[in-house]
Order: sequence, then structure tokens, then C-alpha cells
Amino acid sequence: MDVVSLTEKLVSLPSSQSSKGLVGNFEADTEQFIFNTLREKLSNQWKIRRQKVVNDRYNLIVDDGTPTQLLLIGHMDVVEPGEAWSKNILGESVGNLLYGRGSADMKSGDAIIMTTLMYAASQNIPGVAALFYCDEEYEFLGMKKYINNTPKPEFLKLVVCPEPTDMKIRQGVRGCFECKLIIRGKRGHSARPNSGVNAYRALAVAINAVDNLCKEKNNTVFGVPTVNVAGLSCGTIKGTDYSGNKIIEHTGNVIPDYCEATLELRITPEIAQEEIENTLRTAIQSTNASLTLLETSFFVGSYLTKKEDLNLLEAAQKIIRGDIQYDNPANGGYSDIQMISEKWQIPCALFGPTGTNMHSADESVDIKSLKKTESIFHKLVDQLRISS
Amino acid sequence: MDVVSLTEKLVSLPSSQSSKGLVGNFEADTEQFIFNTLREKLSNQWKIRRQKVVNDRYNLIVDDGTPTQLLLIGHMDVVEPGEAWSKNILGESVGNLLYGRGSADMKSGDAIIMTTLMYAASQNIPGVAALFYCDEEYEFLGMKKYINNTPKPEFLKLVVCPEPTDMKIRQGVRGCFECKLIIRGKRGHSARPNSGVNAYRALAVAINAVDNLCKEKNNTVFGVPTVNVAGLSCGTIKGTDYSGNKIIEHTGNVIPDYCEATLELRITPEIAQEEIENTLRTAIQSTNASLTLLETSFFVGSYLTKKEDLNLLEAAQKIIRGDIQYDNPANGGYSDIQMISEKWQIPCALFGPTGTNMHSADESVDIKSLKKTESIFHKLVDQLRISS
Repeated sequence: MDVVSLTEKLVSLPSSQSSKGLVGNFEADTEQFIFNTLREKLSNQWKIRRQKVVNDRYNLIVDDGTPTQLLLIGHMDVVEPGEAWSKNILGESVGNLLYGRGSADMKSGDAIIMTTLMYAASQNIPGVAALFYCDEEYEFLGMKKYINNTPKPEFLKLVVCPEPTDMKIRQGVRGCFECKLIIRGKRGHSARPNSGVNAYRALAVAINAVDNLCKEKNNTVFGVPTVNVAGLSCGTIKGTDYSGNKIIEHTGNVIPDYCEATLELRITPEIAQEEIENTLRTAIQSTNASLTLLETSFFVGSYLTKKEDLNLLEAAQKIIRGDIQYDNPANGGYSDIQMISEKWQIPCALFGPTGTNMHSADESVDIKSLKKTESIFHKLVDQLRISS
Repeated sequence: MDVVSLTEKLVSLPSSQSSKGLVGNFEADTEQFIFNTLREKLSNQWKIRRQKVVNDRYNLIVDDGTPTQLLLIGHMDVVEPGEAWSKNILGESVGNLLYGRGSADMKSGDAIIMTTLMYAASQNIPGVAALFYCDEEYEFLGMKKYINNTPKPEFLKLVVCPEPTDMKIRQGVRGCFECKLIIRGKRGHSARPNSGVNAYRALAVAINAVDNLCKEKNNTVFGVPTVNVAGLSCGTIKGTDYSGNKIIEHTGNVIPDYCEATLELRITPEIAQEEIENTLRTAIQSTNASLTLLETSFFVGSYLTKKEDLNLLEAAQKIIRGDIQYDNPANGGYSDIQMISEKWQIPCALFGPTGTNMHSADESVDIKSLKKTESIFHKLVDQLRISS
């Protein structure tokens, strides 16, 4: 089976977490298809195990029974269908593009992993293994289950995930910290600034402190961590509405006593959760306002693999492309391959085909790049034999 | 009639703009009472004219038919009743305090003006006039009508308003600027900061610019103008609710495209409306966001009279108190006496009795200070004769 028809088949199987519209069966059909196909195509020497994650959601763990040297990982879930599709969300090819939800992110990557396993089997190259996992797009349940229940393979050299990277090597991703803050000041009359404590001004002090912390944490590859003030509501509380939401008034001559904000940071390896939280707390303590809530809703670290630890992948890329290309890891979103890097301290990379409109309407994968990326993965397997 | 019983009578006449609860007759009864009392107590030489402001709301303009040298002004409206009164809102004396809405702000001041007119009449001291006016607490309709329709009296030396100032001279008040801003950025994914334009960050630049403008405008009497960020709402717009209000979401990984804010500045004579507006515009133009609304809802200037131009009032204060006391004009709210100062370029001062809880529950005036302030006003009339 070629990689394009495998991708088409995978895209035709809905695997969104959303229950809305067309798509609502989680990864069950996708996982069943991958399981059946590999069971049929690989010899009995290969082990294909299902790892239960939650309810009917599973990871698939595949190896040839020899110590794993190269681990290929791909998630089986996709984001919700969304609106405004002009192409068939379950797959439609137009020229060099294959459209459909997950065509780029990352059913095409799963297809590449499948043919690469078959290639390793056909070439009798040992040590190639794969993880197909669930729930990458939302809660990372699949990766968490896997990494917490799998011992580090002793001879593992490299983990690669074919997320769409425009056929460039992504050697790391920034981590992510998100928190909600509530700050209380004291109401007062603006004509007498000392009669109140402006809750917004205390938040501004805290934002400034976090901005400065980030500037100190410049990373040669990622640059400085960035701070997204994602939401902010400040004013005077006038009770709650029928839904229990606070009614916040903006009255010019009243010094506002309430400020809530959602901050989200994209972080580098030099910055820890506690350091951000302490910076916020200390800054607000330096004002006359009080911090009544600091709730970290989300923290995941970053990872960064040195280029010299990616020589196998560089070599495979160079054979097919003619050059070695990295993308800017500061521009990529979080990927849960980071959890493997953190737990096992193993070289990790994202490397996949060219995709467009990931997470939005008319997502597509470039078919030429898909085939080329597949070739690079097969060459990577070859490199494994050469290097051992 | 003595000043305390006059105050009691005035406080017993509701004159709030609010239609809620006890009080809802505007200033009509108060104005009628002042008119009738003065008509009865002053000789026919005195002119008492009603100036229509709006609907049934009037200013009362009183003079003795000679050129005005000293103008005493007092507003007849009070703020809404409000809640949590433990004393009778229409007047209750306990020891040295007379409670009631308007007891301090400023029915007691109106009573002082009334007895001072009677004192001038009894002493045959010419040139004392008064303005009793409406709508000081809300829209300044009374003062606007007066100042736009009254020629500057040629021999006018001083305007005094007995708002409660703890028997200290207030030589000026800061002005007030209030605006609403709406800033639009561009949604984006926080993992790629360049994919969007954070509307909040643009606002923060604008606030910073206005803070800096104010620091440059330090005034030896008022200090620096102060900026109240009175309300702020930032996030991603998700449509409107049934009431037509914007639904603004705070989503950590989304760069917010919407920010609205209410800013209110307490300003000094060195700062003009256009300068503030231009500072905001220029600051936001320096960002990648756009200013879609800059609506100045309120602008009134400041005024500041030199101490050497207040020697009549100083002299009267010194005779009764034994010393000369000024309060800090940076701590006072706006007063529409400023409009007279600006239009006529005449020395103006606020000077009145000791009050507590103005605009809130259990407002009261200190009776001893009320009598003492009355004496100072009578001495001020004497000064007029001495100085002429």
C-alpha cells in the first residue's frame, strides 16, 4: 500500500474528539485500521499492542521484538471539523493537494510511519518501533499514559514525529504556562488617588515583572519567552448576573477594585513554573493590592535537542533533499514529544510534510512533499543500519 | 433666621436629581423656599431673578442693584439618597452634627449665602450678589446656563462657593478628562507571536504614554495629573449577547484582538484635551493595532487662583480663626466654579464648613463649623467695605 492511499484511507475515518457534526468517533476506527493493516503487512515477529488510555481510547505500540533504536510517533486524533469547508472534510484530492481534516495534522504522518515500519520489515533492519497515540490535540492523555508506563528503551537513539514541518527539522518546541489571576484593590474616588487602590495598576506591575523575567531568559535558539495577555477584565464589581458571572462596571471617577486576567507564556528551558508564579506574587505584593487567586491552569515544559544529536535525520534529509534544513523552533506550537524528551533525555525531532490550514477549514497536505518525506524516513531507517 | 434653622429647613426639602425613593423633586421646592425667604427678608431694592435652565429647573440670581463686587455661589441640587442611612435623610441633629442629604454638600452653604445677603442688607454694604443654581452634581446645566448668559460684572473682585472644605481655603481644583477607547488588534496563535497583534499591548503603550505626559506636567500646587484606568476589557470577541453587549472570551493561546478601556484623568492647567487625545492616538499609531474609537465623554478644565488674589478671604478667615489655612487642591474633586474662573478670569475660591460622608450615607455638617464659617462670610462682607 502506498503512502498516499494510506493517507486517504486514514482521512476518511473520522477521529475528532468533538461530538459535533460529521465526526465523533474518537480514534477508534483509525486505530482499528492501523492495527489491522500492520497485523496483515508485518510478520508475526512484530508485536502490536493496544494500551488502554481511557474508555474506548487506546494507544498502539509496535515493535519488531528487538531493542528499539528509532521510535516513530504519530497521534491518531484530529481537531474538531470546524466550519466553512469548501472541500470534502473526509478527503478530496485536487492536483497536488489532498484535503481533509487531519490530512496534514497528522494522518499523512501516520501513513508515513506505517510504510516505514513495512520498509524496515522488508529490509530486515531491526530496531524500528512506533507509537500511535490518542488525544494529542486536547489533554495529552495518550502520551501521558505512554510515558508514565513505558521504561526507556536501552538502545534508543532518536524519536521522530512526522507532524507537518514543511520538510524541515524542528529540533525543539517552547513550553507553555497559562494562569488566571484575580487581583483586588480598593474602591476610591479618582479625584483623590490615595483614597483607593487601582487593581489594574497592580496587574500592570505584575505583567511588567513577567516581561522583564522573560527578557532575562533569552535562549539562543528560541529567543525570549513571550507573554500573551490573553484576556483582562477590570472595573468595579456590581454583583453577579443570573449566570453567576461578575458584573463589572467601568465608571470614570471610581478607582477600580477588581482585575482578572489570563496570562499565557511560551517558555524556554531556562524558565520554571515556580519562577513565573513567584515573579507574579512578588510583584503584586510590592503594590497595595492583594492577589486573591493565582491558578496555573496549564504547565508543560520545552525541549531542545542539539543539532549534533540529529545527525541520522540530517543525513537522511540530505540524501533526498540535497541539503539540511531546520525550521525556527520559536514559531512552532507545543508538541507532546516534549514529554519523551524530558523523561528519557533522548534526541527528539519533529519532521514531516508540507501542510496548510492545520486546525482550520480546507486543511491539506502537499502530496509531493508527503512522498518525499516518506523517502526521507526510509533513508533514516537505512541510516540506522549504516550507523550500527 | 439663623443659619442652622435655615440649613435644617433646606435639608428637609428633597432636591435630588434621582427619581428613586424619598427624593425626586429636583430643586423646585428648595428654589421656591430660597426665593420666598429672600423676597421677604431683603428690601425691594434687591433683585431676585429666576433663570430658566431646563423644564422646571431654575437658577436664582440675586443682587442689590449695585455693581457686583463679591459673588457667592451655591448649588441647590444634591446627589441621590443612597442606602444604609442610620439617620433621617431629611434632617436629624445629634449633638454637634446635623445629618441629612445635602447637610454638608451644600444646603448649609446655601444657608450661609442667604444670611450673608441679609447681613450685607442690614449693614448697607453694597456689591454683594449671589447665584443659587441647579444641577451641579450631574451635568452642570445650571452653571453652563449662567456663565453663557451673564456678562462679566465689571467690578467683580472675588467669587466664593461655600462647599464643605473644613474651613480651609481651596484656591483651585483639578480638571477632569474622561474617554472611552476601543482598540482592535489581530487574532493569532500565541505560539507564533507574529501571527497576531495583541490589542491589550497597544493599550498598555497608550496608557504608558499618557502616564509620561502627566509626569511632564508637574504643577507646583496640584502635583502631577493622575490617570485612573477605570475599566478595561480585553479578549477575543465571540459575538454579542441578547442585550447587544459584546461577548469577550479569554482564551490562553489566542492573541486577543479587542480591548476597550475607560480612562479618566485629573488634570492641571498645563494640560489640554487635544494634547491627551493626540498622545493616545500617536501611541496607538506606533503599534500595529488600530484605534477604532476615541470618544471623550467629559472634559472640564482646572482652575487655580493665586493666594495674593485671595487676600480679602484670608483677612476674614484670620479675624475669626486666628490663622490662614489652605487645603490641598490636589485632593478635591472638580467644582463648576472653575467655569467662572475660566470665562471671567476672576479670583475664585471654595470655602465652607466641616462636612462628613458627602455623597454617601449619614452625610452631616458640623454645626460649630457652620456658625464659624457664617461669621467668616460676614467678615468677608465687612472686608469689602474696608477695601473699597
